[in-house]
Amino acid sequence: MKLNQSKIVDCTIRDGGLVNNWNFSIEFVQKLYAGLNAAGVDYMEIGYKNSPKLLKGAESAGPWRFLDDDFLRKVIPEKGHTKLSALVDIGRVDANDILPRSESMIDLIRVACYIKEVDKGLQLVQLFHDLGYETTINIMALSNVMEHELLEAFEMIKDSVVDVVYIVDSYGSLDYKDMEHLINKFKKHLPNKRLGVHTHNNMQLAFSNTLVAAANGVELLDASVYGMGRAAGNCPTELLVTHLKNTNYELRPVLQVLEELLVPLREKEEWGYNIPYMITGTLDEHPRSAMALRASENKDKVVDFYDKLTTPEVSFEK
Amino acid sequence: MKLNQSKIVDCTIRDGGLVNNWNFSIEFVQKLYAGLNAAGVDYMEIGYKNSPKLLKGAESAGPWRFLDDDFLRKVIPEKGHTKLSALVDIGRVDANDILPRSESMIDLIRVACYIKEVDKGLQLVQLFHDLGYETTINIMALSNVMEHELLEAFEMIKDSVVDVVYIVDSYGSLDYKDMEHLINKFKKHLPNKRLGVHTHNNMQLAFSNTLVAAANGVELLDASVYGMGRAAGNCPTELLVTHLKNTNYELRPVLQVLEELLVPLREKEEWGYNIPYMITGTLDEHPRSAMALRASENKDKVVDFYDKLTTPEVSFEK
Repeated sequence: MKLNQSKIVDCTIRDGGLVNNWNFSIEFVQKLYAGLNAAGVDYMEIGYKNSPKLLKGAESAGPWRFLDDDFLRKVIPEKGHTKLSALVDIGRVDANDILPRSESMIDLIRVACYIKEVDKGLQLVQLFHDLGYETTINIMALSNVMEHELLEAFEMIKDSVVDVVYIVDSYGSLDYKDMEHLINKFKKHLPNKRLGVHTHNNMQLAFSNTLVAAANGVELLDASVYGMGRAAGNCPTELLVTHLKNTNYELRPVLQVLEELLVPLREKEEWGYNIPYMITGTLDEHPRSAMALRASENKDKVVDFYDKLTTPEVSFEK
Repeated sequence: MKLNQSKIVDCTIRDGGLVNNWNFSIEFVQKLYAGLNAAGVDYMEIGYKNSPKLLKGAESAGPWRFLDDDFLRKVIPEKGHTKLSALVDIGRVDANDILPRSESMIDLIRVACYIKEVDKGLQLVQLFHDLGYETTINIMALSNVMEHELLEAFEMIKDSVVDVVYIVDSYGSLDYKDMEHLINKFKKHLPNKRLGVHTHNNMQLAFSNTLVAAANGVELLDASVYGMGRAAGNCPTELLVTHLKNTNYELRPVLQVLEELLVPLREKEEWGYNIPYMITGTLDEHPRSAMALRASENKDKVVDFYDKLTTPEVSFEK
């Protein structure tokens, strides 16, 4: 039986950093890398490669918010099987910060963008590609994209150098039928591109949608240990590792990481399924209103929250 | 567009009682019933109809463990749209306890059994059917059933009076492909029976598997508010109510129940996805060892727990 083509991209540090402002200790990241490597996970997204000069409030964030190659070499003196990945946002990356891949710890640079920025995203992709990196373009908020916008984006992407195109369920609002529909559309219009998927767990569908993607030929599967990620979090790495068929992943090293790092961290920081995130997911909108609610003293006032989001005449600070 | 045939059976009190020994106050149950009724939920399983005479340790349990019709009439003086359901276990029910339906508050009696007890289960079904009740037979632990056992059970069931046959994922180990496989088998061999599904959330697949079941024609969908149920819990009622297509359910009354009852209760009692339950789910076994771990001081020692379950030579008290 052939081995599954799936590759896991663990985003615990990068997406999880949105929970704790990237305040992971070096030891935490080293142990996580060792565990993921022992588990056979293919990529570890170790942070953002944005520039602190281009982002407000940068001072308080941990070093994984603005990765530096000299720093990374000290954190991970010896790389194993697991490759390193970094994410960049449009308008927040300084091309002068990026070393050629041959001089960098990073193997893969992923460009996150909304549908209207795909042209700008592909310019960055070209830059990183020319520097020798593997590249992806991650199209966010696909549940809010109109057909003609997507078709225009496909026209640009299919002639680009990008290696992998990501379907991103930013709002955690897609179910398996939506996922199959999107994958079929991407495969039809981008037959020469490999695909990736990034899910959110607002409706408890992150793992299921990722399995559906894998079964439909999507190759790069984003996940994070214990699902750590913004708001409702992501597809849990431990579930992919144990459940993907025809792969050689090992669960036990991920359990060690869970026991030593992520389960204790979850006692201090909040992420995962809860009702405000479920509400923004079912309404197919950004979780920022729910995140603001969870940070307030009214964090469990879900009926009032729902009424505000669903009553047009009530003004509401999103 | 035709309305979806799905019917939701909310099991918060019955399956959730396995978490708190059925110590729900009368007011809690009354408010839950009112909320489910306002939401349009079809059935509320309000407890077990077992006999305290046939069960050890019965004294400490709340009244929903052993439903009594006189008591129920006081709890719910006026029934709405939402029908009442009770579950019985083989060998724990006294036929003399069961009134004719015309004298009872209960509309539906469900018989839970393992595959080897289907004959005994169908005898109870016949009894309840003759008394006027709607009936189901809920075949537990289907992931551990061999093909020939299932085919023998189908032979008995197809000629029985039972209204609905349930696929029960007791260990939370099934994914959507397993679920589709089972549903197709049940439909092929029991073309004259309606189907139901009861899922567990060990692998974060309870909601997804229930959606797959609904899309494949399964009619009765078990759920519980906030997923409250033994160990990893069940498919959340709030997700079914908001997400099932072509239905007339209302989310807001479920949110009221969540805010007033279930979210506060979750602060005191534990259920839902965690790593020990994930481990028993992925190993396709009963969660009792994980429940014992969670009740011990070693509740987060997941590596040691995994080693004990996966190393044959280590004896382990399950």
